Amino acid sequence: MSSFTKISPRARIGRNVEIGDFTVIHDDVEIGDDCKIDSHCVIGHPNPMARGRPLVIGPGSTIRSHAVFYQGSTLGEGLATGHGVLVRENTVAGRGFRIGSNCDIEGDAVFGDWVRLHSEVHVGKGARVGHFVWLYPRVQFTNDPFPPSHLCLEVAIDDMAVIATGVLLMPGVRVGLGAFVGAGSVVRSDVPAIHCVTGDPARVFTTLDRFVSFEHGLKAPWPRHFRDAYPEAAWPAMDEVVGRVYAAIAEYRSRAGGK
Amino acid sequence: MSSFTKISPRARIGRNVEIGDFTVIHDDVEIGDDCKIDSHCVIGHPNPMARGRPLVIGPGSTIRSHAVFYQGSTLGEGLATGHGVLVRENTVAGRGFRIGSNCDIEGDAVFGDWVRLHSEVHVGKGARVGHFVWLYPRVQFTNDPFPPSHLCLEVAIDDMAVIATGVLLMPGVRVGLGAFVGAGSVVRSDVPAIHCVTGDPARVFTTLDRFVSFEHGLKAPWPRHFRDAYPEAAWPAMDEVVGRVYAAIAEYRSRAGGK
Amino acid sequence: MSSFTKISPRARIGRNVEIGDFTVIHDDVEIGDDCKIDSHCVIGHPNPMARGRPLVIGPGSTIRSHAVFYQGSTLGEGLATGHGVLVRENTVAGRGFRIGSNCDIEGDAVFGDWVRLHSEVHVGKGARVGHFVWLYPRVQFTNDPFPPSHLCLEVAIDDMAVIATGVLLMPGVRVGLGAFVGAGSVVRSDVPAIHCVTGDPARVFTTLDRFVSFEHGLKAPWPRHFRDAYPEAAWPAMDEVVGRVYAAIAEYRSRAGGK
Repeated sequence: MSSFTKISPRARIGRNVEIGDFTVIHDDVEIGDDCKIDSHCVIGHPNPMARGRPLVIGPGSTIRSHAVFYQGSTLGEGLATGHGVLVRENTVAGRGFRIGSNCDIEGDAVFGDWVRLHSEVHVGKGARVGHFVWLYPRVQFTNDPFPPSHLCLEVAIDDMAVIATGVLLMPGVRVGLGAFVGAGSVVRSDVPAIHCVTGDPARVFTTLDRFVSFEHGLKAPWPRHFRDAYPEAAWPAMDEVVGRVYAAIAEYRSRAGGK
Repeated sequence: MSSFTKISPRARIGRNVEIGDFTVIHDDVEIGDDCKIDSHCVIGHPNPMARGRPLVIGPGSTIRSHAVFYQGSTLGEGLATGHGVLVRENTVAGRGFRIGSNCDIEGDAVFGDWVRLHSEVHVGKGARVGHFVWLYPRVQFTNDPFPPSHLCLEVAIDDMAVIATGVLLMPGVRVGLGAFVGAGSVVRSDVPAIHCVTGDPARVFTTLDRFVSFEHGLKAPWPRHFRDAYPEAAWPAMDEVVGRVYAAIAEYRSRAGGK
Repeated sequence: MSSFTKISPRARIGRNVEIGDFTVIHDDVEIGDDCKIDSHCVIGHPNPMARGRPLVIGPGSTIRSHAVFYQGSTLGEGLATGHGVLVRENTVAGRGFRIGSNCDIEGDAVFGDWVRLHSEVHVGKGARVGHFVWLYPRVQFTNDPFPPSHLCLEVAIDDMAVIATGVLLMPGVRVGLGAFVGAGSVVRSDVPAIHCVTGDPARVFTTLDRFVSFEHGLKAPWPRHFRDAYPEAAWPAMDEVVGRVYAAIAEYRSRAGGK
């Protein structure tokens, strides 16, 4: 280990953990085995809002340089981040969480398993994000419906939804199972499961079973053509969610009749 | 104090100042009493455009990790920042300035008292921002009306205006006293005092006295329901501005007749 | 040189190079003469996708604090960056490249000579950017036309194009020679050479020869009024590109007849 780190003797650090130069590890931290934390990070930034709970980083995680993680969050096995991410207190994430460079997770948020955030996603306080959700660069969550106020209407994203680049999610909106939100949209009302929306305000343009790229020969939902971007350990859970997506499509088609 | 800092012997540092690990304090710096500067910061980045003036940080300030403050700016008492903020030369701010994580203040800007910037606000050179202004995440100032050129038309925001998330402010626009700009708007012309605008281009949808959240039982202006988010020291100044907001409403109503 | 740096003995570092405190220089790095690298940087971040190639920084470059450059990229003479930039592997840039604070260049990109990126530009993988291109704050490149997929349709920007603040460039779009894209636009199809577009979707509002600011007495293309913002070394190349811009205008006018 480098001689240029500052590691609290109270931090609990697993076996085979690499810690980069000029990184600070604070007191209330638990790091699993086989983790790699790059240089210039702040791990376990003390915060009274964490009410004494530690930061827990699951085994097999990689944290890139200039990241800041607050005390009081729990990240599952196989976390992988870009550079300069900020994860505040009381964030809970499942397995295989990926956070792109310069993302800002403001805390009190819950993420399911195998969630992927591209660069510069801003997740407002209180967000609820399901399993296998994709958030593309600069997706922006909000939560105050009458700013500035003490109100907080959290955004919720259901399993396997995909939110493309630069989308603004207004306070309290729900994005349903397997839904797709096109790049640059502003989501001002709920997006129903297996529907695809775009624009400001975001409006339905198709459903997932009819969302096809003829040019490239691809069909939604994405695990049809993108399964190999996940480790095999993720596939059983992926199949379970895809099953629910297809059931939602079948139910929608049955209600919609021949349309 | 930590042994991992690099502090210039020429910097003037008050009593009871904490400085985090791996932070650099340059020569032309004055830090008031009772400040806390976290790790990995650059305080007083040398810059010829500061023409020899120091960086002045008021007493009772908190600067979070990975921040960069240039020489030549003056920040009032009780500054509080998030992580990774950048404040360039010749920025002047009053009391109680709050800057969210990853904000980028490009310099030559003036901020009144009790201004709050959420995360990732980008303030272009020359901006003028009044007292008790709120700027939500990713508000973006511009200043060049014919890019690229040597022209600089500064944006100006009057007291107690609220600019919601993701708003783009075009060069030279003025946002009036107590005005409200909705999330995702593009402000392409001036916003009159006590008016509420939204969209691209931003257009008036109501006035402040009729801007009400029936669902949540809240009315504008925001100090009616959000006064407690400020210390008592801010209340007299807040009352003075609110008085001017009500006077502007009364004047507008009187001109508008019974409408 | 400061005693608080961590410099690999394998790095090849030119003469008269300044390296700031708490900066890490990795193994596979070549830094030209007369460079200045500020504090808290990571230079030559190791990465298998660089396939063993070094990071090459041209002579006379300045890299501001908290930057991260990956192994495997080549930046020409006179690079100048803001703070907190990220440049990933296999990026190639010509002379006089300027990168604003918090830009994120995701790699496998090619930039011509004298390109300028303002703050927080996000350049997706595979982008092709010509000479004398201007990208204003928060320009956002995308590349996946059916997210998430394995497809990558790179954005290409031709010489002397100007993309104003907050523009979203959809996968695979081409922006032609000398074209102008107005602030806040979403570019969903190709922009022809010497045309000016704005809006979502971005549509033509004029051509470059008719793009005039009567108020300020300025005309496009910008080297008419902004030549002095570049060093004289850039002028011959600038003249060559301007010559092609005028030829494209003449050809367009000739095709358009008297219109």
